[in-house]
Amino acid sequence: MRALVRLEKIGATMSARAGSKGEAEVLVFDAGRPQSRSDDLVTEEPLEIRLRAAAAGGDETLAMHGSPAGAARQRTVAVTMRTPGADFELAAGFLFGEGVIREPAEIAGIAHCDDPGIDDARRANVVNVKLRSAALPDLDALQRHFHMTSACGVCGKTSLDALRITRPATIAAGPAVDAEVLTSLPEKLRSGQGLFGATGGLHAAALFDARGRLLAVREDVGRHNAVDKVVGWAFLDGRLPLAEHILMVSGRTSFEILQKAVMAGVPVVCAVSAPSTLAVSVAREFGVTLIGFLRGERFNVYAGAERVKRA
Amino acid sequence: MRALVRLEKIGATMSARAGSKGEAEVLVFDAGRPQSRSDDLVTEEPLEIRLRAAAAGGDETLAMHGSPAGAARQRTVAVTMRTPGADFELAAGFLFGEGVIREPAEIAGIAHCDDPGIDDARRANVVNVKLRSAALPDLDALQRHFHMTSACGVCGKTSLDALRITRPATIAAGPAVDAEVLTSLPEKLRSGQGLFGATGGLHAAALFDARGRLLAVREDVGRHNAVDKVVGWAFLDGRLPLAEHILMVSGRTSFEILQKAVMAGVPVVCAVSAPSTLAVSVAREFGVTLIGFLRGERFNVYAGAERVKRA
Repeated sequence: MRALVRLEKIGATMSARAGSKGEAEVLVFDAGRPQSRSDDLVTEEPLEIRLRAAAAGGDETLAMHGSPAGAARQRTVAVTMRTPGADFELAAGFLFGEGVIREPAEIAGIAHCDDPGIDDARRANVVNVKLRSAALPDLDALQRHFHMTSACGVCGKTSLDALRITRPATIAAGPAVDAEVLTSLPEKLRSGQGLFGATGGLHAAALFDARGRLLAVREDVGRHNAVDKVVGWAFLDGRLPLAEHILMVSGRTSFEILQKAVMAGVPVVCAVSAPSTLAVSVAREFGVTLIGFLRGERFNVYAGAERVKRA
Repeated sequence: MRALVRLEKIGATMSARAGSKGEAEVLVFDAGRPQSRSDDLVTEEPLEIRLRAAAAGGDETLAMHGSPAGAARQRTVAVTMRTPGADFELAAGFLFGEGVIREPAEIAGIAHCDDPGIDDARRANVVNVKLRSAALPDLDALQRHFHMTSACGVCGKTSLDALRITRPATIAAGPAVDAEVLTSLPEKLRSGQGLFGATGGLHAAALFDARGRLLAVREDVGRHNAVDKVVGWAFLDGRLPLAEHILMVSGRTSFEILQKAVMAGVPVVCAVSAPSTLAVSVAREFGVTLIGFLRGERFNVYAGAERVKRA
């Protein structure tokens, strides 16, 4: 017997832009009759990251809009799908991770879009990073990896070579971390996450000190964004390089996660799930301790085991 | 008491380029003394996707290398981190999903790099998509979303607007799918996955017909790549639009997953985990049935419930 289910409510009640989670009417199929209920969803919205060079003089806003000189001083660097929240940190972390900015002192301020006439929903999705310099930095840094590889074919080694050129400094030798500290991190990460329980759809990244104290946790629909947010927090707080810190991510580790860790100088990276081959290669090549499958009382060390202490 | 653990083996035995998985020596911490063992890892390597226009005449290879005319006929479109395997499908699916190519007939052939002098490891990481046309297509399509949004600020609506312009056709009304068929899909997906059990680190995407028969399953370290691979398979096989098909993904659904489904004309998208707000918006706006938390006998319908039949 065929019985098409109708759900008139769907399409009418989703409020996605209000914050980092939205609500949707959903039809739950289980044993018995389908039930309609309201469900929390993680918000996903695009974020446009713009760089703006300092004005030579005069009113900042007037000088920016509608003039050729203003246009030359501003450039959109990226549009990324993200979960709203910690957007300034995301912008700073992204720009640092890509090698576009190196020091907090290079930034005069970060603000949401001030274009006249833009509506509030869009304004919240544009972040202007204002530089102290009167010239935009060389944005070819963003495409360095691309240019390096396209001439000669690509492989994991070319990706490592590009990172070696971009990174600000080498990874410090320390710290030594107790195995018991490591096994305590997943629970601390979970208890620091506000949204995951509600939505079931978020990645998280956290920074800990070597004694396992949680310093910052950030969540995002995108795994790379969550790491950019915590690194951006540390960057803006003047804490880089993170030579005595542990970065923990809720999922797997890939090349890009390790790349961001190396840029920030993080010596220990932990993950709940598996690393990729290239994540292990980066960790070994750059001296990062890489831990995977960190669950309960056990974990795997894929690189840099000399930093792991046993009681 | 402090006892630093040493693991000389690490760094010596990883073979990452041999295929879709690599092996690494790993130190397992559990109750008792750390144990060294060999572990399977999912391979992650960059893939460079190049478009090449047809030669006006003469030898293809000689005409391509080292001449200005050759350079003008070839362009690198993307470099993506991926798990080797189904690379031609990945390239085709990516180009189709971005609106760069529309029909299999536009492609004269797909091959690994034929640059003279390139070593085998790099050759396998470069795919040349050779077009029948003597001119490269307008690659601004790749940046359409970016251009549309950067002038006026971004929000979810602008992302939907960009997709409406790019998609080849609307989603068909059918098919109706039994709830029992839907609950059978996760197990079929898992049994079709070759690598996940070994590595624990892979995303999967699968295409089913409306009766739940598995047509294709592809795995990748990147969730979007896995979808590009199955869509690319269908594209090269002349099966698009996938008007009677179900796309299933192993993780969450985001804007980009739904975007790829809409481009391919897929009417039903299922996921093991949660959708984002923007995934639900795309599904409702474009008439896609979106199912999440498909586990055991239960699932949630976020959009398009009219396609779900109950026995």
